[in-house]
Amino acid sequence: MSSLRLNTTQLPNKHLRNMKSDFLFHLEIPLNDPEILAKFQNVKFVCVGGTANRMQKLALHLAQEIKFETTGDVSFEYSFENERYSGFKVGPIFCVSHGIGTSSLSVMLHEVFKLLEQAKACDVTLIRIGTCGGIGITPGTVVISTGSVTVGFEEFYNTSCLGKLLRLPTTADPELVNDIYSCRSESDNFQVITGKTYCSEDFYQGQGRMDGSFCDYEKADKDDFLKQLYDIGVRNMEMESAGVLAMALRVGIKGKSARVGSCG
Amino acid sequence: MSSLRLNTTQLPNKHLRNMKSDFLFHLEIPLNDPEILAKFQNVKFVCVGGTANRMQKLALHLAQEIKFETTGDVSFEYSFENERYSGFKVGPIFCVSHGIGTSSLSVMLHEVFKLLEQAKACDVTLIRIGTCGGIGITPGTVVISTGSVTVGFEEFYNTSCLGKLLRLPTTADPELVNDIYSCRSESDNFQVITGKTYCSEDFYQGQGRMDGSFCDYEKADKDDFLKQLYDIGVRNMEMESAGVLAMALRVGIKGKSARVGSCG
Repeated sequence: MSSLRLNTTQLPNKHLRNMKSDFLFHLEIPLNDPEILAKFQNVKFVCVGGTANRMQKLALHLAQEIKFETTGDVSFEYSFENERYSGFKVGPIFCVSHGIGTSSLSVMLHEVFKLLEQAKACDVTLIRIGTCGGIGITPGTVVISTGSVTVGFEEFYNTSCLGKLLRLPTTADPELVNDIYSCRSESDNFQVITGKTYCSEDFYQGQGRMDGSFCDYEKADKDDFLKQLYDIGVRNMEMESAGVLAMALRVGIKGKSARVGSCG
Repeated sequence: MSSLRLNTTQLPNKHLRNMKSDFLFHLEIPLNDPEILAKFQNVKFVCVGGTANRMQKLALHLAQEIKFETTGDVSFEYSFENERYSGFKVGPIFCVSHGIGTSSLSVMLHEVFKLLEQAKACDVTLIRIGTCGGIGITPGTVVISTGSVTVGFEEFYNTSCLGKLLRLPTTADPELVNDIYSCRSESDNFQVITGKTYCSEDFYQGQGRMDGSFCDYEKADKDDFLKQLYDIGVRNMEMESAGVLAMALRVGIKGKSARVGSCG
């Protein structure tokens, strides 16, 4: 897994230079506390995923994997848990939950990026690790995203700026894709592949499910949709990858989205 | 506040009739438990808002307001709290948290509607009550939404179905708007108005803030945006109203979105 640079000392918002911004409202982290900022200066990996428990377990597991010394069962240098988001820092790893969907994710990422800038962290890699639905793959397969496809089958994150549509590209960095792919091992009891990820803003109709409160199509339409996705190289689907990749590119991280195919 | 009909006995998804769907995955509520379903048969009001604590307080407050008997400090007939959503039922009121954004909201609403259908609840009113930003109004003003405006200044909820854009109307029911408006009292220490609500999928650039990780505009552009919104009748902005109104209309509730203007 390569370590790619986050331009934390100059986020692309010139207004921040002249702004008194001393509290991250949704993360509930003060930015004017030197002790807290000092803890984040050595962050090299930001991992994001859906829920608090999963992020807590991930932080400890990754710390053990990279042989970072931990003492006792839980040894977070910093953690926070509130009703919206939770985060767990252990050594160079900071794992943060994002809730469901790109809107929830984007609020968190804006604030994490500001935290890293203030802490003067550098060479940071951002990875989303989460559950997803697989498309034409063996359940349990890990799909390393090469890019995120959204509504209209295009590789753009559709958001807005001042009431107008804002389309941000969602292509992943090929070098990081290769680096993560090269980490697979013959002893793995799961498959690792690369492929595009479909990012839907809806869990039910958006992803072809037929058990939502409303559904306007038949199974044949769903099957056609999944085949269309497969034919353009999509191997899994979820609800946040477009936001992760687009926002990381926008602020200067070469982001990546790796996830486990939980169903096929 | 009027009681408008939810066609719970026939949600607009014919596939549900032949489907074994016995667990609401994100709410973590079983649908095959007669005792649980019996508790929800008398639901008349579903109130949704951002966080668990706020929904818990709201459920108890509203129960007292309508003189529904409660015993002790907390007397929920049913409650659940998980990492994604929390809900609190007291008498005819069911208050549920939705997280941030329409994607997070829509997952919860799909499942709440299915719960109400299985419980044979009828004549249900759905209301979102949450924080927002005010536009040209006194802070603390309650804005009763007449409709929700989204990107492009149109009254549609933009979601997707099988990879294609799905635009659902977000106009509120005028009768319910009037009914809620008529509940105001001369003794209220806050203003109550009706107006359109701008629903953004982004908290920072989408709503004109200048303190996100990236920002591509100047204050004059932000002021122009807010003036454009005011000129078309928008009086507040948040991130979920379009989903509430559109999904309620889609399943047959005449939904409404009432919220407190927390800043102007």
